[in-house]
Amino acid sequence: MAETLTGVGVGSGVGHGPVLRLNRAVPEPPEGELHNGDAEAESQRALSALEETAHDLASRGERAGGHAQEVLNAQALMARDPTLAGDVRRRVAEGASAARAVSDAVAVYREMLAAAGEYMAARVADLDDVRDRAVAGLLGVPVPGIPASTTPFVLVANDLAPADTALLDPSMVRGIVTREGGPTSHTAILARALGLPAVVACPRAETIPDGAELLVDGVTGVVVRDPDPAVVAETGARAAARASASEATGPGRTSDGHAVPLLANIGGPNDLPVALRNGAEGIGLYRTEFLFLDRSDAPGHEEQVAAYRAVLDAFPGGKVTVRTLDAGADKPLGFLAPPGAESNPALGVRGLRMLRHSPETLAAQLTALAAAARGTDAELAVMAPMVTDAADAEWFASAAADAGIAHAGVMIEVPVAALRARHLAEAAEFFSIGTNDLTQYACAADREISALGTFQDPWQPGVLDLVAATARAAAAAGRPCGVCGEAASDPILSCVLVGLGATSLSMGATALPLVRAALARSTLAQCREAAAAALDARDGPGAKSAAREHLPGAASLGL
Amino acid sequence: MAETLTGVGVGSGVGHGPVLRLNRAVPEPPEGELHNGDAEAESQRALSALEETAHDLASRGERAGGHAQEVLNAQALMARDPTLAGDVRRRVAEGASAARAVSDAVAVYREMLAAAGEYMAARVADLDDVRDRAVAGLLGVPVPGIPASTTPFVLVANDLAPADTALLDPSMVRGIVTREGGPTSHTAILARALGLPAVVACPRAETIPDGAELLVDGVTGVVVRDPDPAVVAETGARAAARASASEATGPGRTSDGHAVPLLANIGGPNDLPVALRNGAEGIGLYRTEFLFLDRSDAPGHEEQVAAYRAVLDAFPGGKVTVRTLDAGADKPLGFLAPPGAESNPALGVRGLRMLRHSPETLAAQLTALAAAARGTDAELAVMAPMVTDAADAEWFASAAADAGIAHAGVMIEVPVAALRARHLAEAAEFFSIGTNDLTQYACAADREISALGTFQDPWQPGVLDLVAATARAAAAAGRPCGVCGEAASDPILSCVLVGLGATSLSMGATALPLVRAALARSTLAQCREAAAAALDARDGPGAKSAAREHLPGAASLGL
Repeated sequence: MAETLTGVGVGSGVGHGPVLRLNRAVPEPPEGELHNGDAEAESQRALSALEETAHDLASRGERAGGHAQEVLNAQALMARDPTLAGDVRRRVAEGASAARAVSDAVAVYREMLAAAGEYMAARVADLDDVRDRAVAGLLGVPVPGIPASTTPFVLVANDLAPADTALLDPSMVRGIVTREGGPTSHTAILARALGLPAVVACPRAETIPDGAELLVDGVTGVVVRDPDPAVVAETGARAAARASASEATGPGRTSDGHAVPLLANIGGPNDLPVALRNGAEGIGLYRTEFLFLDRSDAPGHEEQVAAYRAVLDAFPGGKVTVRTLDAGADKPLGFLAPPGAESNPALGVRGLRMLRHSPETLAAQLTALAAAARGTDAELAVMAPMVTDAADAEWFASAAADAGIAHAGVMIEVPVAALRARHLAEAAEFFSIGTNDLTQYACAADREISALGTFQDPWQPGVLDLVAATARAAAAAGRPCGVCGEAASDPILSCVLVGLGATSLSMGATALPLVRAALARSTLAQCREAAAAALDARDGPGAKSAAREHLPGAASLGL
Repeated sequence: MAETLTGVGVGSGVGHGPVLRLNRAVPEPPEGELHNGDAEAESQRALSALEETAHDLASRGERAGGHAQEVLNAQALMARDPTLAGDVRRRVAEGASAARAVSDAVAVYREMLAAAGEYMAARVADLDDVRDRAVAGLLGVPVPGIPASTTPFVLVANDLAPADTALLDPSMVRGIVTREGGPTSHTAILARALGLPAVVACPRAETIPDGAELLVDGVTGVVVRDPDPAVVAETGARAAARASASEATGPGRTSDGHAVPLLANIGGPNDLPVALRNGAEGIGLYRTEFLFLDRSDAPGHEEQVAAYRAVLDAFPGGKVTVRTLDAGADKPLGFLAPPGAESNPALGVRGLRMLRHSPETLAAQLTALAAAARGTDAELAVMAPMVTDAADAEWFASAAADAGIAHAGVMIEVPVAALRARHLAEAAEFFSIGTNDLTQYACAADREISALGTFQDPWQPGVLDLVAATARAAAAAGRPCGVCGEAASDPILSCVLVGLGATSLSMGATALPLVRAALARSTLAQCREAAAAALDARDGPGAKSAAREHLPGAASLGL
């Protein structure tokens, strides 16, 4: 019988092909290895290796564009860090070989990062990648990465660094399987952005040998080794059906004509081409952190206006919903630190809580947004992250009104905000449910801990309860209620969200075609029946399979 | 007009008196101070100061007993830490003066603690206290602490170390005001255990001068400086009414005879005398961590049996509900570490999640509990912390059954567990709502961050929604539903919890008399009306004041 492994499915496809394993083995330079005498030359060799690594990462970023580019540029900055360079130089001066000096200096840097909380800890994998690349260059061994292949393959790895996934060619990659990572991890988000079926948090992935044939189901999370040919054939047929379905264009609607605007989540102007190519009807979530990260002062008025206008200009007549700065201990900014030490930054002074401590930062951002909107045809709306209660919503709406912005809403990410949405609706013009954080808090399960995968599932019926409560309160108050978490990009779940009362869906743009196709094959009544069936379930997988039974059109896409 | 400051009220009383400020000023030994030559003698001086500090803390602990003793013993262990001693010795050998060496060595230790997550970070204040005490001894200045006073006073401090509060004489202290700390902070819990009215997280507390007259309202969180004599007189009358009310004994019930068993939360056998003195009808929450902390192996079978039996023997015929080990990154155990690094330990692998990774630890504890219960007359029940879904509840119930324990329930601390209580009730024999963690997750606000005080309030109507949902599901399934968080110790809130459907209340034992009195002055119908009014409110303070209006009997206690 074919061997089967089960992890957490991400993306919404299936794929198969022979295994290609990520090459990560860079030999460790010998402990205490010394160089032959010319410290200056050896120092230069070490620094050149770091610079080549930085250059390579940055140029991969340039080719990849979008969010991947931001990540790769940040990684390049690590390789060029002057403190790191100083430490390498000192170690070589004390006799260490270039490879040893780089390895040891990075180890110190790594410890600092790991200790500095979630946002930085997530960068540890990026830093390990920098070290492996630089050390490989110094030892003259192959740089870690995906071996060249001229035939399609399924990529298997312990985990993937951004540099690995950024340049994956979707026409060669049939799927990804990793042992680490959760459904909202970096790897999963990038894989989803590339439109690849993937299974993460897959135990025993490391036992799959190179060359084995794998079938990867990004929907169920099942990985089948050496699958039956009939299963592979069926998979091929489904993939073909999906490919043709995803050519559908036009505004989002159910088969009986209930309109559900399909919007894109973007991290900056670089993500606009993909959003437009996939037919986004507007921007449902414009994350503005990229303007604020990695700098010691807040960006100036003109810089902000220019960035915002680039996005607003791309959607004449359409709606652009900007999330104001979502800062906190998990995304530390040089100029805006939490008021005290935080042992659990996800439960700390972040999002609007931080802006309430620094109203001038919010006022400056809102003023720049209002200025950017003047003279464009787009409809600007702003929304606040991490809103907890009605007082938060009132405070934010009043700040937006002071800046002359007419449309101000709130994100629903905190469980009590969902339960008390009727009170928030008095001040908020619209809701946007952030299912990633809502799931994290409702299930008390950190998004970054792969051991808690089953609790990070937006299909958890208790999470669906909170979505339903929010949508009910919105409808009673006559307010729109969108969803902008990863949940909206799951075609079956997107139908359920509409059935629960979501009035728009915003997602990473590559997910738009399949969601559009799934909606177009389902009636509103089917969506509602699927939602009711999901709410009756006892757990996440049960909710998903119960919903599928009521959505034959969407399920026929092979989702 | 009298000046008024507002913080977060904890405890359930009011008090007034002249201010006495905590003396915390220990001069910093001069930077780089050296000793006169005899390193061995200087080293001995430094180590003796640490040992005297340890001895003083441990003997304070012995006099205080209960939870305070555990905390002070842990602090004494810090002062006796061999690594710290080694570092002090090394610094003195390199020439540093004893005071400087202690100060610098503690600073290194402190950084490690602060970096090691919530549980350890909370100990940083304890460590600072150790340093201040040891350095004061070496410099021959007064040890920090509460100045001796033969007349009653209101204690004002930035924050209180356990050593400060452990030996406070309630007959001399009329109230406590601190600038730091939240309603569930260490200081608040200890102050509540002593039955003192306190206001924490009180901005500008540091501006109150020694000798000013203060009125401290632990109910409203209001601190009045130089209050009107009429107000003070009224306060006195209320306090007298409360004192006589709290002499009521017997089982908990409303004035119309609805029984609500009143139980105690305990941390070990040391807390039993206080529980019995205050008329606890049983133990609603027996925290078992004290057996497991600060050791490299799990305690053996006989040691566990003896500890559990001491508690079971104290309640013949009564119910003792034991919470199985609640371990995790926030309470690190030497022999049971989370499977990976955790940036947000409160959202990590803790409680039952940890035990599912280490079923043998749970099996050993349950086996010891079953053995302890044999031959006693108490009714043993076990409950699992940090239960998320029905599968968790089933797994735990089955583990309890395997050990021969008939009564197995679950704590409701995770929002989805409250929302899906109907599914959990299929396997769980009873629920116990842990309002502290439930509030933390539902409001996404870390209990330890004082800036988020308003979100750490169990009066938040969204939190009451979750309590109501749990109690409704329990009633539908015919299951008991207790509350064992700090919320149960607030006399007005305790009536609301009963109105929402709580069937028993468990709390720190000193809170029992006032809760008993508040219930005895309210009908079940009033409790239900108060609950409905609280659910209609928009925020925590609104819920509390709406509820009070429906509970005139309880409110007449001056609560």
